Amino acid sequence: MDKQNLLEMIFRKKYEEYREATEELQPADLARILDQMDKNNRLVAFRLLKKDVATEAFAYMDPDIRMDMVEGFTDAELMRALERMSLDDATDLLEDMPASVVKRVLAQSDPKTRESLNRLLHYPEDSAGSIMTPEYVRLRSTQTVTEALNTIRQVGNKAETVYTCFVVLRSRLVGVVSAKDLLLANPDDKIADIMDDNIIFCRVTDDQEYVSREMQRYGFMTMPIVDNEGMMVGIVTMDDAVDVLTEESTEDMQKMAAILPDDDAGSYFNTSVWVHAKQRIPWLLILMLSATFTGLVTQHYEAAFTALPLLVSFMPMLMDTGGNCGNQSSTLMVRGLALGEVSTGDFLKVLRKELGVALIVGSVLGVVNGLRIFIMYRSSYPNDIVNYVLVVSISLFFAIILAKFVGGMLPLLAKRLGADPAIMATPFITTIVDAGALVIYFTLASWMFQLPK
Amino acid sequence: MDKQNLLEMIFRKKYEEYREATEELQPADLARILDQMDKNNRLVAFRLLKKDVATEAFAYMDPDIRMDMVEGFTDAELMRALERMSLDDATDLLEDMPASVVKRVLAQSDPKTRESLNRLLHYPEDSAGSIMTPEYVRLRSTQTVTEALNTIRQVGNKAETVYTCFVVLRSRLVGVVSAKDLLLANPDDKIADIMDDNIIFCRVTDDQEYVSREMQRYGFMTMPIVDNEGMMVGIVTMDDAVDVLTEESTEDMQKMAAILPDDDAGSYFNTSVWVHAKQRIPWLLILMLSATFTGLVTQHYEAAFTALPLLVSFMPMLMDTGGNCGNQSSTLMVRGLALGEVSTGDFLKVLRKELGVALIVGSVLGVVNGLRIFIMYRSSYPNDIVNYVLVVSISLFFAIILAKFVGGMLPLLAKRLGADPAIMATPFITTIVDAGALVIYFTLASWMFQLPK
Repeated sequence: MDKQNLLEMIFRKKYEEYREATEELQPADLARILDQMDKNNRLVAFRLLKKDVATEAFAYMDPDIRMDMVEGFTDAELMRALERMSLDDATDLLEDMPASVVKRVLAQSDPKTRESLNRLLHYPEDSAGSIMTPEYVRLRSTQTVTEALNTIRQVGNKAETVYTCFVVLRSRLVGVVSAKDLLLANPDDKIADIMDDNIIFCRVTDDQEYVSREMQRYGFMTMPIVDNEGMMVGIVTMDDAVDVLTEESTEDMQKMAAILPDDDAGSYFNTSVWVHAKQRIPWLLILMLSATFTGLVTQHYEAAFTALPLLVSFMPMLMDTGGNCGNQSSTLMVRGLALGEVSTGDFLKVLRKELGVALIVGSVLGVVNGLRIFIMYRSSYPNDIVNYVLVVSISLFFAIILAKFVGGMLPLLAKRLGADPAIMATPFITTIVDAGALVIYFTLASWMFQLPK
Repeated sequence: MDKQNLLEMIFRKKYEEYREATEELQPADLARILDQMDKNNRLVAFRLLKKDVATEAFAYMDPDIRMDMVEGFTDAELMRALERMSLDDATDLLEDMPASVVKRVLAQSDPKTRESLNRLLHYPEDSAGSIMTPEYVRLRSTQTVTEALNTIRQVGNKAETVYTCFVVLRSRLVGVVSAKDLLLANPDDKIADIMDDNIIFCRVTDDQEYVSREMQRYGFMTMPIVDNEGMMVGIVTMDDAVDVLTEESTEDMQKMAAILPDDDAGSYFNTSVWVHAKQRIPWLLILMLSATFTGLVTQHYEAAFTALPLLVSFMPMLMDTGGNCGNQSSTLMVRGLALGEVSTGDFLKVLRKELGVALIVGSVLGVVNGLRIFIMYRSSYPNDIVNYVLVVSISLFFAIILAKFVGGMLPLLAKRLGADPAIMATPFITTIVDAGALVIYFTLASWMFQLPK
């Protein structure tokens, strides 16, 4: 079943067949087909769906396309779509909508939903609060297993998950019990006896990536979230956590590649050429202007390379290798920090590790590069060949030490200062390492060749 | 409760207190504390744990440390640890162990476990087979809901999850039913009536990242896996899928940073300086030697820059900006391919998008850079300033076009040829763009300034 099949049914007015076919599809697959249609066909195809099929598919559609569709929705359609979505998904959608639409939606919601939506809309972006849902199964510790299962049957359809249930006493979380525990327990057991009262939880203000990594570490499918007074306010489920982890990895990759992440930008093709340019120009400009500095360093040694023009041809190798070395270290730091393998207190440990690696890497590359220069230039520059080999290889060695030092330390320093380590990573490091490597190179060359200053 | 507290209890021989304290901890937290201990304390602390606490914590420990501990285990301890792990985790552990140990383990396992382990050990690395487990709940379509719940109660403790159950007929998967459906259904309903028979599955030979992304897309917590004959052979659960996604993102980041991923390497600090160096040297060497090529290009234009030494000082800016631009495009491609947003058939669409972006970016950067050069050098080079501005800005413009073209196309081409797009990304692109940018620059300069060749 693909886009063509479905559109054909619509064009031939075989609406019954269309409804049956779409009902058979997985919501995620139907959503993908709708995503691929053009704007007008999409709205028609969407309106011809059975109501619950439509709302289910809607939740899986591309966020940008969803926003687009909402603009064509009647109020009734919008309310229905939102009602069927879980509260956290509905909040995500509302967050991107114009204030007037949000107001209208809130006015028409029932008071309880309105209160929940309002609260969710106020949590800071990227906090646990922004991805949690208040729809979870609450149990009491005095219930029996049979009573608990009945509670699940009553509220299960409205809860985001029934597989982890939370035992709450006066809004405080006192225990956790899984549906598996309930199914395997004796029907007359008391919840108090089978629940786990050694509870792991996160706070509503915790960073969403931290919460998601904690869930991964503990192997949890659901994480309870408490507010600053210790009251249970919601849960984060694994499907949202996985999306957060994917998003955060993408953002880190983009930042390391000097791209400004844009929360409003969609997937690669759904982002316009203008938005792409807007995401890419700022850092390129900053880096281009900071390379002016490297240019001035070069200009300072003009006398050296006009006397010995061959020096210029080793510049690209020196700068690229330095940049690559720094990049390796900073990438390992950024990822290590994101995964919690490295923390900001590890300055000395990282320093020791990176300097050790730099000594080995610098020696190997220095020797190989020396050999390469010796073989390539020994016949053209028989008198100076040893000097060239020594100048380039020794500079390379120290450029690598510098690169690994800066690449290892700068992300940690950024994190310690509350800045984003990924932003500091590739771009800044390249500029520092480039300029540093050239200073080492030309200073050494001027000295060894006894060049005019 | 931390390392110090626990070690103190052991040193003071308060074993009962130690056992109680460790039993209260989450397995993941206990595992982390054990990870932090030194080798000898760790084995003592581990052996003093209650047996089931020990085996649960073992499953959460750092894989490298686990391998280390296994070497000190008696056969009985090893068998017990493996028995309590799920089969997929046990397979992971066995995969890294010496063949002699594996043989001993298999010989001592019961025949059924041996058969399963043997089969799992033979699936290719990174395939769905290598992360799946055969321990799932099988139901029959003729069962009633009550009977199905009884089946879950009987086999639930040995299954990896009870929340998604699979309806199997002569080894073929005919339907899926969730524990939620079972809990909310009428006790006398037949499974055939409530099961979903429109089944999404993956194949045992599918790539593990593909399977994990499909699970994310469909919002599945469990994915059924069938073999080439269509027989159901196991399930992949979300906890393993999340680990795969994290691992694959880390690997892509490493490859883009010219680091050779090493499956046997542990976290940053658990990897020795030698292994770090081994992961970093090969690509640095290749790139260093390929920068020789850029060096030769430079050397070719020696006459140009000895006549006009100022030309050299714009080289770093030109090379860095070109590299950064290519990097942006290739990063977007590598991530887009990994997330399934971009496919290898999208050559033309990518080309159009990247060239559009390149035109905007090239124009903006060209103009800003022209202004910068004009302001900085107009008094020192009053006669040639217009030529310098034009040469540098026009070269920059075309270097950006080249960078976006190569950065956008090379990863797609790599993927199409069955190679790894991340490997082609940053490193190769830099070399091509560097050399290309310098050729454009010096050719244009020679022509505009009418320099000797």
